[in-house]
Amino acid sequence: MYSAVDIYKKKTIKSAKLFEKSKKFHVNGVSHNIRFFEPYPFVTKSAKGKYLVDVDGNKYTDYWMGHWSLILGHAAPQVASLVKKQLQSCWMHGTVNDITVSFSEIIQKAVPVAEKIRYVSTGTEATMYAVRIARALTGRKTIAKIEGGWHGYTTDLLKSVNWPFEESESAGLVDESHIVSLPYNDLEKSIQILDSVKNDLAGIIVEPVLGGAGCIPGTKDYLTGIQEFAHKNNSLFLLDEIVTGFRFSFGCMYDTMNLDPDIVTLGKIVGGGFPIGVICGKEEVMKVVDSSTHKKTGRSYVGGGTFSANPVTMTSGKAILGYLKKNSGPVYKKIGKLGDQARRGLAQVFDGKIAVTGIGSLFMPHFLANGITEIKNASDASRCDIELLHRYHFEMIAKEGIFFLPGKLGAISSVHLESDVKGIIEASSRFSALIN
Amino acid sequence: MYSAVDIYKKKTIKSAKLFEKSKKFHVNGVSHNIRFFEPYPFVTKSAKGKYLVDVDGNKYTDYWMGHWSLILGHAAPQVASLVKKQLQSCWMHGTVNDITVSFSEIIQKAVPVAEKIRYVSTGTEATMYAVRIARALTGRKTIAKIEGGWHGYTTDLLKSVNWPFEESESAGLVDESHIVSLPYNDLEKSIQILDSVKNDLAGIIVEPVLGGAGCIPGTKDYLTGIQEFAHKNNSLFLLDEIVTGFRFSFGCMYDTMNLDPDIVTLGKIVGGGFPIGVICGKEEVMKVVDSSTHKKTGRSYVGGGTFSANPVTMTSGKAILGYLKKNSGPVYKKIGKLGDQARRGLAQVFDGKIAVTGIGSLFMPHFLANGITEIKNASDASRCDIELLHRYHFEMIAKEGIFFLPGKLGAISSVHLESDVKGIIEASSRFSALIN
Repeated sequence: MYSAVDIYKKKTIKSAKLFEKSKKFHVNGVSHNIRFFEPYPFVTKSAKGKYLVDVDGNKYTDYWMGHWSLILGHAAPQVASLVKKQLQSCWMHGTVNDITVSFSEIIQKAVPVAEKIRYVSTGTEATMYAVRIARALTGRKTIAKIEGGWHGYTTDLLKSVNWPFEESESAGLVDESHIVSLPYNDLEKSIQILDSVKNDLAGIIVEPVLGGAGCIPGTKDYLTGIQEFAHKNNSLFLLDEIVTGFRFSFGCMYDTMNLDPDIVTLGKIVGGGFPIGVICGKEEVMKVVDSSTHKKTGRSYVGGGTFSANPVTMTSGKAILGYLKKNSGPVYKKIGKLGDQARRGLAQVFDGKIAVTGIGSLFMPHFLANGITEIKNASDASRCDIELLHRYHFEMIAKEGIFFLPGKLGAISSVHLESDVKGIIEASSRFSALIN
Repeated sequence: MYSAVDIYKKKTIKSAKLFEKSKKFHVNGVSHNIRFFEPYPFVTKSAKGKYLVDVDGNKYTDYWMGHWSLILGHAAPQVASLVKKQLQSCWMHGTVNDITVSFSEIIQKAVPVAEKIRYVSTGTEATMYAVRIARALTGRKTIAKIEGGWHGYTTDLLKSVNWPFEESESAGLVDESHIVSLPYNDLEKSIQILDSVKNDLAGIIVEPVLGGAGCIPGTKDYLTGIQEFAHKNNSLFLLDEIVTGFRFSFGCMYDTMNLDPDIVTLGKIVGGGFPIGVICGKEEVMKVVDSSTHKKTGRSYVGGGTFSANPVTMTSGKAILGYLKKNSGPVYKKIGKLGDQARRGLAQVFDGKIAVTGIGSLFMPHFLANGITEIKNASDASRCDIELLHRYHFEMIAKEGIFFLPGKLGAISSVHLESDVKGIIEASSRFSALIN
């Protein structure tokens, strides 16, 4: 008998009431579309280590981990202690501070492309600026992105995010005509499309692992191939590492794949859970941003913003990267191993019914449908049984106390244990029995 | 003998070294263009109450106040205590939380147009979405903004920000053709321009007090006139109150001016110094954002973002608005009176050489030049002696321990005293003697 909704409703009575109230104030009750799920999302009261606790006192082992930002788990003490100390002094003042300098020193060592850095407050802002810089430097307008690629809500990149990719993402956009979309991991077709716009191609922006679109790693051949096209064409190769930066090793994925991006965007993990976006670029690229040497028509106008490089985010970032630097060996080894176990275990449990994607500490099951047998791109992922995936994730929430944001990939943090992964596998096998 | 630079260099030796280092990592040494000033900006070590303290131990009475965000001064204890408590629990988790609900309850009561609210992390994001909503709802593309109007770095509004207004703000923009600019406080000319684009006019976005462009209040006739045009034309009237919201009273300026905006954007003050942007709108407007009732081509795709409505920003916002609500009488009366004293005192000291603009706790001197005698819009402000204004502000920093971000308006906080305003006046009279 399928009764996950009943079970959920029974144990989330306070959440139900609070969410009803939230709907009075907020569109669909939320401040981020994806945070809503049926019948209503539980309301979180606190989060510590691997757990989310809701207002009814239910505890969930969390693999959403704050949009995959929290690699040391919730409320990491390594970050908390330094942030609390910083709060004694101040949390924002809108002038230059010394914490930024020492934070950047850590980033520059770990991310060699960061010859010059600018901090903003969100990933959306970072990719907006990356695009603006590419257009400014090249004098061209077209940006190529990946089908299903997610770079935040910036107007400049809102195309072909959600299936069906040929449909607009939103009413009210004006920039779509300057964006073309490439099928991930299909170099031949991608080069064809790039070739057709090459004269106006300012840059190509890519996630080395498609995040929101299904946790799909790019192949080395593919990423190298489009990078080569970009550079031969004097277009910029922009790598969006907001999800992947410091996720698999102490540094960026481009480095381990021997890629040569012109700009890398960072966010999530490097802020330690506080709002951040980072634009890292080669000196020759970033110099177009310099307002002290360029008149306004010649520069690329890059913020900033009121909260950029604020002392709390800088402290939190310094704390987390400082910790990861010292402990990179054990941390990345551990979470990578747990990721492997999760991928293997899920594949076994669902025995041919799913494809599991992911790499390192990121993993995601796709319920195969429509003749799909392998997930190479967002189109493959979108044609799987998305409804069943949502049901699976919801059952985990309702019956098992395991939280994946429905439909999204799971991220393992250093506070998760082997027993947690076992817990996922066991819970999944109960679900598998249910749908057989 | 004019030697402010020598004095400054002498007392900011550590700042000089640190800023040299900062330049290794950051474009022009900063993470926000306007934070740079010649010969180099001092590096802030801490900030408390009305003071900024730099790494050399110099103390500055601060009127920049974190991009005018800090109405209770730096590190306000009313905010710190609650934020520290929240940090014990968690600082971000990317799910719905109850703090957001109670924060929104306060905002909705104080800002009636906030029938529906969505939180983002910056003002730039808030205005980006306001424009997107206007375009989605009307099916039109053109946005009218004010010459000199500043709504953050969003691609959708980067036109006619800095003098000369007819020149592009940046290389690499693609949206400029959809933006038209209006001369502030000139209703006749503004209506002429609006009339010429009325068939494609999605919305008009206005600051009720021009902030970055010179601290210039809009007249009631002007604001009412363009609002009337918008509404008759079925265009949206978007009021950007990121600077003015909760600056002059416990609520928004539109309310005290009897305006009827469709969307109001908030930021700065309402976040208590933590990253925030808020989109407040009428229910009938905001419903286009609802992804549960609209397919992707019909909705306006509005985030969100990883850090939206995070527990720390929500707590900080709740703390500051909670305090202001209880103390609105004395706080706004006090800072408004100090603002009056500053404006009157400066006008007296510079005796006809300047025009002082501002309202309530905001004030700004303009050194008259080029036949300008009155400051009604950004063009008037830009044709004043900007160089002299920068020199004035720099002398305050170097010789007087008073900090205005060079070229920008001053904001008085509840921790400033009459003696501080007297200090500005006395310091200004020394500067006035110097340039006479």
